[in-house]
Order: sequence, then structure tokens, then C-alpha cells
Amino acid sequence: MKRTIFLFAALFMSLISFAQQALWGGQDLISPEIHADNTVTFRFMAPNAEQVQVTGDFLPTRKMTTSFGEVDAPGIADLRKNEDGVWEYITPEPLSSELYSYSFLVDGLKVTDPNNVYLNRDVASVTNIFIIKGGQGDVYSVNKVPHGTVARYWYDSPSLGLTRRITVYTPAGYEKSTQTYPVLYLLHGMGGDEEAWVTLGRTVQILDNLIAQGKAEPMLVVMPNGNASQEAAPGESSLGLVQPNMQLPKTMDGEIETSFPDVIQFVESTFRVEKQKSARAIAGLSMGGFHSLHISKEYPDMFDYVGLFSAAISPREGMQSPIYQNMEEKLKVQFDKHPKLYWIGIGKTDFLYKNNVDFRKKLDDNGYKYEYRESDGGHIWKNWRIYLSEFAPRLFK
Amino acid sequence: MKRTIFLFAALFMSLISFAQQALWGGQDLISPEIHADNTVTFRFMAPNAEQVQVTGDFLPTRKMTTSFGEVDAPGIADLRKNEDGVWEYITPEPLSSELYSYSFLVDGLKVTDPNNVYLNRDVASVTNIFIIKGGQGDVYSVNKVPHGTVARYWYDSPSLGLTRRITVYTPAGYEKSTQTYPVLYLLHGMGGDEEAWVTLGRTVQILDNLIAQGKAEPMLVVMPNGNASQEAAPGESSLGLVQPNMQLPKTMDGEIETSFPDVIQFVESTFRVEKQKSARAIAGLSMGGFHSLHISKEYPDMFDYVGLFSAAISPREGMQSPIYQNMEEKLKVQFDKHPKLYWIGIGKTDFLYKNNVDFRKKLDDNGYKYEYRESDGGHIWKNWRIYLSEFAPRLFK
Repeated sequence: MKRTIFLFAALFMSLISFAQQALWGGQDLISPEIHADNTVTFRFMAPNAEQVQVTGDFLPTRKMTTSFGEVDAPGIADLRKNEDGVWEYITPEPLSSELYSYSFLVDGLKVTDPNNVYLNRDVASVTNIFIIKGGQGDVYSVNKVPHGTVARYWYDSPSLGLTRRITVYTPAGYEKSTQTYPVLYLLHGMGGDEEAWVTLGRTVQILDNLIAQGKAEPMLVVMPNGNASQEAAPGESSLGLVQPNMQLPKTMDGEIETSFPDVIQFVESTFRVEKQKSARAIAGLSMGGFHSLHISKEYPDMFDYVGLFSAAISPREGMQSPIYQNMEEKLKVQFDKHPKLYWIGIGKTDFLYKNNVDFRKKLDDNGYKYEYRESDGGHIWKNWRIYLSEFAPRLFK
Repeated sequence: MKRTIFLFAALFMSLISFAQQALWGGQDLISPEIHADNTVTFRFMAPNAEQVQVTGDFLPTRKMTTSFGEVDAPGIADLRKNEDGVWEYITPEPLSSELYSYSFLVDGLKVTDPNNVYLNRDVASVTNIFIIKGGQGDVYSVNKVPHGTVARYWYDSPSLGLTRRITVYTPAGYEKSTQTYPVLYLLHGMGGDEEAWVTLGRTVQILDNLIAQGKAEPMLVVMPNGNASQEAAPGESSLGLVQPNMQLPKTMDGEIETSFPDVIQFVESTFRVEKQKSARAIAGLSMGGFHSLHISKEYPDMFDYVGLFSAAISPREGMQSPIYQNMEEKLKVQFDKHPKLYWIGIGKTDFLYKNNVDFRKKLDDNGYKYEYRESDGGHIWKNWRIYLSEFAPRLFK
């Protein structure tokens, strides 16, 4: 009993780091390294590789021609190998403040960065992330501000015959307060789930920061699972650790819209929230924008605030669900009740741009009031984070 | 407006899968593939690699000699390349039911499996996981049982001068019930944080399943951050997306023990819980076992149940903190009050085995009652999950 804590800790750490090195092939680099001027160096050790590249949304997009026309593809840049077998790429220009994602391509095969533990899953792809501070990236960062609570609950959906997982953000102070709060219902896109807005969308950081700055009202944000066949996100249901997959049944067939009152019922019976139209907002991206459009028109007394982010507005003529019948009449009922905010945002190169032009024309032709936000870029999370950070401050004021 | 939903969805999915293929280098394999007999095939595409190996805790450990003596290192197996450039390894024997983790080594460099999105971070290492069902693995799986809620709160620690993140599991039915519940405080090891027991430890699945089977009482499980210098896990604090690191200050210097009443205060003022000794348990792994030992002896009226899982019991002579003074007297006070359960578990090849032998001898010499569980293996999460699944059913009965 003579050894001190210091010796003990040294032994312990040496053993662990030994085990890690033996196990993990000894990569020990800084990557990505964000320099003071916001240029970034990426590093990857691969002495035997013939080519190492980095691809991600920090690089200019490439135009690629497909059978569906020209689309944006993420840029690719070559790393250069130094004498130690470490490949490097330094961005030629400083990056603007944002949250970026990237992967390496080693001899054409995608791998994550073994020196960066921060990863996001988007459907079946896992990529690394990093944040450039000093602007929009600050809104996506954890700052020294009061923090809300994030919880995964399970709620009963009698309409779907399922118990389902749901993510709920309650603002800082909720537990100690007696006040009631308004609620934003925030819906994901195709291939997403109740995790998407928290992981890829940085909803918690956006709300914490906007509320702390007095830019947004304290509110709950409720993020349900928008795939009517699913109990929960991949890996979180009794299906086990299945490979995520975009081709799910029952995503845009009316069932999510029909069953949405189950979500409202759970929220309004579980949390201290206001229960009138002026205290409810609904917004979603892509398929979630489509759901928001249909849910808000189907229940015209439920939401005073509607946000369509790159909404997958698509014709419904072939569909059986009563949700998609008499669309013109239902929209008239909704807009005759003058929702406080009907907000449409889309990127100029989004493949859904034309669908949104058509929809706006319909609104214009009928004199329905909405606000329109057009951004650069396409069908990407960068835009949806920006839209949320602009939409949330407009709510409940 | 003539295209149907079906055409639309087809277009959408094709674009996305095209973008993913272009971005991700086109790996499209099943890996790991768990066969009906519980053998497992691992696959990795790397036409140009000279060697592809898999390493993980499903393989027999290797003995390695270090300056600290002989230690267990994870096994390594070679994959074999087929004509398509896909490397494969099939386990020679069925695997027993467990949760396993693994990585690939491509020409000696560690990479995660691009065909498996399920990943766990352990300190600075990210590895893939899979589950073999039909036994212990079922306890770690999401099953069709009522599910509890998992939330990340922030609580005030006046003793540490920090607002800190904390993970809380509330059992199924908590929101709708009016009953009060007992609480297990569950502490992580060195390099861990308030995420470790949920991600690596499968606490949520273990508790959901044991409670549903009637084997464990419904209880809260509170998982604080045991690094006194930290507000939150790496990536979850205002330090940003920093590389996780084991060499943190203030981990075993008495501050976590001194400040622990702040955690109790938060829990007992926020949740519907019982507030007497018989309704409080504390357990932890490695450093968390050390913390549990000292917290429970320092506050001898607080916990009726104590669990030391591979506890990092180490001499404290050099330490200043009053927490580590008069250990013998404090242990006598604690054991004279006859805690209902003092539980010690350790693996036969754990590098802390001898420390635990010494500690048990001290307890034996004084006639202090405890239960002892010796398992195979070393200082690994497999053991800590097993200990939790055996310890939790012993609580609050």
C-alpha cells in the first residue's frame, strides 16, 4: 500500500493507451485541424494507399449528369502524402462559419476519420462533422448558456396501433418553472427519424442559443418519428440493429397525418404546455414539409405557424387517403382562418424547387398569405438548420 | 401535376442513392452478417489492400507482454479476399449471446465498418457493435416491452461551481404514475462520462427488460459525469468538438465525492423519488467503483446498496482531500450500520484484481459483510453489463 495515486493513474493510463494502440493501429493525428484563420487541415495515415481524398459539404459542389438531369454532388479534393505516410489536405481558403460534414475516400473506398469521434448518421451513411465558429456555426455550438433538457419518450399511438419513440426538447428552466409553454412540432424527411433533427439538425443547440439571446421564445420542440410503419429509429426498436433504409412503407400515404392527433394528445397530457392554436407550430423538411402542409390544412384550427422547409410537395391524385382529397377546399378553409405565419423556404438548386414554385403560384393565385425564403444550395441539412434558426424566432410572438 | 406519388418517390430515392454512392465510394455489403447458427461473417471491400483484419471482443484475447507485465489484448483475425475485392472472415464457431464490438484493420490501420451504422465511442475510440441474441444479448436488446424515458438534464453543482449535464432513466409508466421510485446512481470509469452507461453499458435496455420481466423493481437510474473538471461529455460542453482524452484533472482527488450531494439534491427535488437510505443505491465501474466506495462510506446514511464493479481501489495516502482520511474509521461506521447489500464484482484477469483481493481481505478481517462475484475476463464493458444485469435485480427488495 505504498504506491500513490499518481503512480496508479500513470499505470492505468499507460495500460489503456497501450491497449488502444495495439487495438487501433496507432493513428494519432490531429484531424481536422482548424487553424486560427479558419483554414482547415485534414490528415489521414495510410502509407500504402495510392490515393486519399476528402469529400464533404465544405467543398464546392460538382455538377453531375444523371438520367434525372444535372444534380449537385459533393466536392472531392486530393490529399498529398508526406514522408511519414500521412496524407494531408489544407483548404485553400478559410471556411465560412458553419457545421460541415466529411469523409475520406481511400483508394475510392469511404472511411470515417479515425481521429475525429464526432459522427452523424444520415439514413445509412455515417460522416464526421466539425464546426467553424464565428458566425452561423456559433448557433450550432454548445455555448455557456442555460441548457434545455432532451428526452426520448415512448407514446401510444392508437391510430397506428403502435407505441412509438419521440424526442422532446424542453427549454432551460422548464423543470423549476410553473409556466406553460408553446410547442413547435418539428418533422424529419424521408429516411430520417426522431433522431434526425437533434443529430443532423442541431435543434438543441439552435434553441438553447436563440432562447438565451432572447431571439426565440422559450418553447418545447417535439420531434416525432414520421415513418408510420416504425416504432422508433433504426437500432432503437425491437427490429434490432438493422441497416437503415430509405424504402420504408407508409411514409407519404396519409397515415402520419391521420395519426398526428395522437402526438398532440401525448404532448398536451404529459407536459406543461399551452393548448390553443396560437401556441402550436408545425414545420418539417422535405417529406416532413409535405406532412406539415397536409397536417396543418387537415386540422385548420390546430396550428397558427407552419414551416415548409424544402417541402416534398408532390401531386396526390393517385392516393386513396382522404387526407389528400379536396386539397383546394381544405387550403381555402385553412387560409380563411389567417394563420399567423405560413413560411416556405427552399434552395435555388433543390430538385424540389419547381414543385415549390408551382405550390406558391397556387397560393398566390388564391391570394393566400405566406412568407418565402430562397437560399443557395440544394436539398441539404445546411439549409434546414438555417431555416430552423430563422423560423424559430418568428414563433409565438 | 400528372406524376403520381410512386414516380415521385422513385425519383427522390434514386437521386439520394445516387448521391450516396457518388459520395461514399459504393460499398454495399452486408456486414456483419449473423447466420442462423450464430456464426458471423464480416465483409470489407478493399480491392487494393494487402491485408484486412478484424479485431474485437468476439475473438479470443491474446496475451501481450508489456513493461507492466502480461496483459490481455483483443484478438485479431485475417480476412480473405475473394475475386470481387471483397474481404471476408467467418467465425469458425458460433458466438455466444452477447453484445460485441469490432473494427477492421486495413493494412494495419483501424477503420470502422462502412456497412454498419451502429457505433460506440469509448474514450477516443469508435468501434462498431453487433448483438447475438438468444441469451445475455437479449438483455441488451430493445424488446417489445414497455420502455422507460431517457433524458439529458443539466443540474447545478454549487460545490463544483458548474452547471453539469446528467443522464436520467425513468422507468416505463413514470409520467402517468403518481408513485415514488427508488434511485440507482450509476457511475462511469476513467475516460467515461454521462453517456457511457447508456451507450456502452446498455443501461436502458437492461433496465427496461429486467423491469418488464419482474426481475428488477421499477427505479430511476441516474448517470452523472464523474470528472469534476467537466461540465459535460466531450462534444456536449462549451469546449466544443474536442478530442476526448483520458488525462483529465480532478477525477480521483475527492471532489466528485465531496460534490455528490449536489446530484442527490437535484434528483430529489426534480423527480418523484423516495428519499430514504433504503431507496438509494450507488454503483460504478473502475473509477466509478472507487467513487462509489468513497461516497458510500463518506455519507453512511445515504445508500443501503453499494456496487463496486472492477473498482479502481487504490491507496490514498498521498491525497489531501478529507474524503480519503480516516478510511478505516469511516468504513467501520458504514458497516456498523449494516448496508443491505455491498456487492463486489471483478474479472479474474483484471489488472485491478489484486487491489480487490486486498480490499476484500480488509473487509474480511473486520467481519464486514459483502457479496463477491468473480467473472472471467478483464477490465471490459462485457463484465460491467453483466454486473449491472445481476446487481439491479438485487435492489430495493
